[in-house]
Amino acid sequence: MYEGAIQDLVDELGRLPGVGPKSAQRIAFHILAADPADVRRLADALTEVKARVQFCEVCGNVAQEPQCRICRDPRRLPTTICVVEEAKDVVAIERTREFRGRYHVLGGAINPIAGIGPDDLRIAQLMTRLADGTVTEVILATDPNVEGEATATYLARLLVPMGLTVSRLASGLPVGGDLEYADEVTLGRAFEGRRRLSA
Amino acid sequence: MYEGAIQDLVDELGRLPGVGPKSAQRIAFHILAADPADVRRLADALTEVKARVQFCEVCGNVAQEPQCRICRDPRRLPTTICVVEEAKDVVAIERTREFRGRYHVLGGAINPIAGIGPDDLRIAQLMTRLADGTVTEVILATDPNVEGEATATYLARLLVPMGLTVSRLASGLPVGGDLEYADEVTLGRAFEGRRRLSA
Repeated sequence: MYEGAIQDLVDELGRLPGVGPKSAQRIAFHILAADPADVRRLADALTEVKARVQFCEVCGNVAQEPQCRICRDPRRLPTTICVVEEAKDVVAIERTREFRGRYHVLGGAINPIAGIGPDDLRIAQLMTRLADGTVTEVILATDPNVEGEATATYLARLLVPMGLTVSRLASGLPVGGDLEYADEVTLGRAFEGRRRLSA
Repeated sequence: MYEGAIQDLVDELGRLPGVGPKSAQRIAFHILAADPADVRRLADALTEVKARVQFCEVCGNVAQEPQCRICRDPRRLPTTICVVEEAKDVVAIERTREFRGRYHVLGGAINPIAGIGPDDLRIAQLMTRLADGTVTEVILATDPNVEGEATATYLARLLVPMGLTVSRLASGLPVGGDLEYADEVTLGRAFEGRRRLSA
């Protein structure tokens, strides 16, 4: 135990995901020795995120304005939507440079054990986006695990009868893992090899 | 790449020791979803550390007042000083509950390759503390690696001729490692088995 401010910082850092007690201590001493301007910038970045980041009113991605950068970009194909669970997944797919369409962020996946059903996800908003017929293809890029597959199956049953081309990312992604941890090449191949689903 | 504030936070977090790009992203999204009061507390803890933590004018440990908690505590034996490299080492030794004396934090170890010589450490301040004869025993608890051993040897050559009882922590500590990573039992045994040095 340290006294006062340094122990407070060790405690606060230790609450972050993936930061154990030793890492928290190491980071706290790094902060103690760091340039005050650098520490100020980190503290500001933390509060700025809460103050300024919002969620895109169209797709649900993280955004700095009412609409995210991708939804505001007129060069992105309006005919194709890639459905993902989280904003992190948008970044992972953007890194592959395989996809020129738009996104829809569900905010999670169907998970009965955790009490998350279709109504807890941004599925109604997806349906609204599909209403005017501009979108002709939907790529289901939910995580390759049980919840992600269940969500893709649920969505395919809704979307295929609407006459849309619906596909699921190809296998090649490690099963049971998180999409965000796939490397660019694997994720890029999975994109190329996506398979069309029938009802 | 995210837009604006969230990327700024990912970048700032990625500069911390032991935080890679994936961890930085994970922490940033945790922050984004966290209670604003929790984020405020973390941001405040960061700036408070810079504003309020100082170094004890006696021993060089981290402190919230001009003197640290241990130097202010009249129950700590004034006759024994344990010399360590860093404030982190004080906490590690306190956890063993083996030591009831006081500390002296050198602020590093002799390391000719990094250009750190005896004059860069708080050795002059140690000599001042020893001047009035109150201290009769000095325990050298520098890290069990090359720099720590060199520093202990250097200090032993200064202190033994002064008639002080000088000891070095017993082997039992993993060689080549950092003192702060030793478990309490190992470090406690090393304390018990410390061996007296001769000139």
